[in-house]
Amino acid sequence: MAKPCGVLTFLTDFGTADTFVGEMKGAALSVSPALAMVDLTHEIPPQDVETASFRLAVAYRSFPPGTVHVAVVDPGVGTARRALAVETESHYFVAPDNGLLSGVLEREPVMAIHAIENPAFFSDRMSATFEGRDRFAPAAAWIASGTPVADLGPRVDDPVLLAAFDVAPVRGSAFRVPVRLVDRFGNAALDLTRERLEPLLQGEDPGAGIRIETPGGIVETILRTYAEAPDETPFALFNSSGYLELAVRDGDASRRLGLRPGMEILVTVS
Amino acid sequence: MAKPCGVLTFLTDFGTADTFVGEMKGAALSVSPALAMVDLTHEIPPQDVETASFRLAVAYRSFPPGTVHVAVVDPGVGTARRALAVETESHYFVAPDNGLLSGVLEREPVMAIHAIENPAFFSDRMSATFEGRDRFAPAAAWIASGTPVADLGPRVDDPVLLAAFDVAPVRGSAFRVPVRLVDRFGNAALDLTRERLEPLLQGEDPGAGIRIETPGGIVETILRTYAEAPDETPFALFNSSGYLELAVRDGDASRRLGLRPGMEILVTVS
Amino acid sequence: MAKPCGVLTFLTDFGTADTFVGEMKGAALSVSPALAMVDLTHEIPPQDVETASFRLAVAYRSFPPGTVHVAVVDPGVGTARRALAVETESHYFVAPDNGLLSGVLEREPVMAIHAIENPAFFSDRMSATFEGRDRFAPAAAWIASGTPVADLGPRVDDPVLLAAFDVAPVRGSAFRVPVRLVDRFGNAALDLTRERLEPLLQGEDPGAGIRIETPGGIVETILRTYAEAPDETPFALFNSSGYLELAVRDGDASRRLGLRPGMEILVTVS
Repeated sequence: MAKPCGVLTFLTDFGTADTFVGEMKGAALSVSPALAMVDLTHEIPPQDVETASFRLAVAYRSFPPGTVHVAVVDPGVGTARRALAVETESHYFVAPDNGLLSGVLEREPVMAIHAIENPAFFSDRMSATFEGRDRFAPAAAWIASGTPVADLGPRVDDPVLLAAFDVAPVRGSAFRVPVRLVDRFGNAALDLTRERLEPLLQGEDPGAGIRIETPGGIVETILRTYAEAPDETPFALFNSSGYLELAVRDGDASRRLGLRPGMEILVTVS
Repeated sequence: MAKPCGVLTFLTDFGTADTFVGEMKGAALSVSPALAMVDLTHEIPPQDVETASFRLAVAYRSFPPGTVHVAVVDPGVGTARRALAVETESHYFVAPDNGLLSGVLEREPVMAIHAIENPAFFSDRMSATFEGRDRFAPAAAWIASGTPVADLGPRVDDPVLLAAFDVAPVRGSAFRVPVRLVDRFGNAALDLTRERLEPLLQGEDPGAGIRIETPGGIVETILRTYAEAPDETPFALFNSSGYLELAVRDGDASRRLGLRPGMEILVTVS
Repeated sequence: MAKPCGVLTFLTDFGTADTFVGEMKGAALSVSPALAMVDLTHEIPPQDVETASFRLAVAYRSFPPGTVHVAVVDPGVGTARRALAVETESHYFVAPDNGLLSGVLEREPVMAIHAIENPAFFSDRMSATFEGRDRFAPAAAWIASGTPVADLGPRVDDPVLLAAFDVAPVRGSAFRVPVRLVDRFGNAALDLTRERLEPLLQGEDPGAGIRIETPGGIVETILRTYAEAPDETPFALFNSSGYLELAVRDGDASRRLGLRPGMEILVTVS
C-alpha cells in the first residue's frame, strides 16, 4: 500500500483539439491545486477500451509509487455502469468499470476496489455526459490528496474484465498472440511478455528457436536493441515495457510486416 | 473577486508541433516558477477568433476560482490593438483586444478591464512578433502571483466584442442558431444554452415541441445522455457545458447531419 | 553558472499518441515529485537530429536560468554513443551525444560537459531501448534537484557537433542559407540571425539591399511585424527568436515560395 504522492496521470480517447482534457485537469485542481499532472496519451482510438487497457498497463509502472492514474475511455458514460477507484500495492487507478483496468489488474496485487458513488466527491457541476470531468477527475484528486478509496463508495468484488489473453505458451506448439499497439516508429508490440516467453527460449541465444509468422514474412531473431540489427531484416526484441516487439532498423515494421493492432499472429517456440 | 490561485490555462491557435506554447510557459515560469499550467487547446483554427471565444467560454468554468486564463489568437499581433487583462467575479483573463473574450464577457460579471502597457511586466526579450510569449504570458503570471490588473496599464471601457449571437428564442417562430464546434466524436454544439431554451420547452418531456433543421434531416428529440438513445437516430442533448448539442449514438453526428462550425441552422419550438 | 530552478523541458521525436513522453515524465517525478515540466515539442520528424538541434536552440532562451532541457532524438539508442549532461552559463542540457546540442553549444558559454554513466542516477528499470525514460529523464531530474553534472560521469571534451552552418555573410557576394523550420502558419525561418546579418544592412531602412532568392520568387523587403505588410507580397522579418524569417501577410509563405526545411536558398546583401 503506497501513500499518495500527489501525482495524477491522464489517459483518454478525447484527443487534444477539444478542451475536454483541460477541463478534467481543472476539475482536479479545483479539489487540490498542488497536484502534478501528466498526460499518458489522449489518442486512444475513440471508445477502444482494449487498447486503453494495454497502454495503461504498459505505462503506469514508470511512475512513482502512490501515483493516481485516471483513465477514461467510456462508451457507457451516462449509463448505470460503475465508476471504479482501485488501490493496488503501489498505485491507484480511477476508471469506468468496463474492462479498462484489465491489464492493470492482471499485473498489480489489488488491495481494494470501490465504486465512486459518494456525491461529496463529485464536481459541483455534475453533468450527465462528462463524468471524466465531474466524477473521475475529482475522485482521483481526492485520492491523491489522501482520501481513502473506501470513502468513495461501496466495495466492488466483481470488476468487469476483458476476455484475457491468457495462453500459456508451450514449447513445440504454435500459439496465437494479439498485436496490441503500433508506435510512432512503426514498432509493433505483441501481448507476450518476457516473463512468459523467456523460460521457453533455449540457453544463451535469446532468439533460439522462435518463429513469428506475420503477413509480411517470418521473423526468427530476437535482439537486445534496435541498433544491433545488422541490416533491414525484421527482428524482434523485448521492448522497454517488457513486451515482445517486432521492429526494423531505420524502418517501419508494421508496414513491412503488415501488422495492425487487434490482429493475431502465430508464434512457435521449438 | 477571487484571489489568484496559482493556476494558468493556455488556449491558442499555435498547434503543438512548434515550440511557441512551450516558450509562453517558459516566459510565465520566468516570472514565477510555482505556477500550475494547463492546456485548454492549441488547435483553434489559425486566426479564428470566434471559435476561440466560444471554446474559452465553454471551458473556463471547469477551473478553480482565481485561475488566470491566457488566450492568444491574434491576427493583429504587432499592431496597435490593445492587450487586455480582465478580472471577473471569479476568474482572470489575458488576451488580445479583438473579441476573443466576448464569450466570457457575456457570461461573467466584470470587475475590471485594463490594457497591458506597463513594460515592467513585459518579458526582457520583448519582440515585435510574439506577444504571446513577451506580453500575454508574463502578464498572466504576474496576475497569478498577486499583481492587481490595475497595475498593468490604463483602464479600458470599450473592449472589442464580436457581434453577439443574441436571438431571444420565441415559441412558435423559427430562429437561426450557429453551430459552434464539432468535437472529436462528431458531436456538434450549437450556440444555444439550456438557460435560454429550457423555459420554452413544454413540461416534463424535455424534447417536447423542438424541431432542429439540419442539412441531413430534422431532429426532434432531446435526451439526457448519449447512451439513452435507443438506436442510431440523431438526437439532441444539453452537453456538459450547458449547450444544445446534436449527437448520434456510437456515430458521428456532424457527418451524418452535414454540420460544420460556423454554419447556421433553424430551430423551432412549438 | 545558474542554480537549478526546478524546471524541466522536453523535446523529442516521440509524438504524443504513444505513452513515451508520459513515461519520461514519470521517471523524472520518481526522482523528484516537485518539478515543473514543460513540453517544447514532440513532433520533431523521426530521427531528425538537425531539426531538433535548431528547435532547441530557438526555444531554450525563453526559460528561466537554471532550467534543465532534456532532448531526445536518438537514432543510436542502445549503442555505445554517449549520453551528455551539459552545464552552460545559464542553462542545463541532457541529450544523446549525436550533435543534437550543436545549436545550443554554438550560442551558450559552456561550463562543463559530462557523460551520464553513473548507474546510481539511472532508472531502476534500466532498459536497453528506452534511454529517454531510463537515463536522460532521471539524469535531468537529478540535476534539477541539485546534483552537479560532474557527479553523473566522466568529463567529455569532444562532444559530437553537426557540421556547422558557419558562413560569415559578406556584403556583395551571395551566400547559401538553409531553411530550418516552417511553422504552423507557414512562416519559414532561415539559419541566419539578426546578429550576423544586421551589420551588413545599410542604415535606417532594415531591408536596404537584401535579396533573398526562393523557388517562388525574390524577396527584397525586411519588415518589423507581420501586420506591417501592406499586401500579400512575401517579405522577411527577424522573428521572435532572432532568425530571419520569410512570411506572407494572412498567408502561407512556405507554400507560396516553395520552401521546405533542409532546403538552401541564396541571400545577397548589396
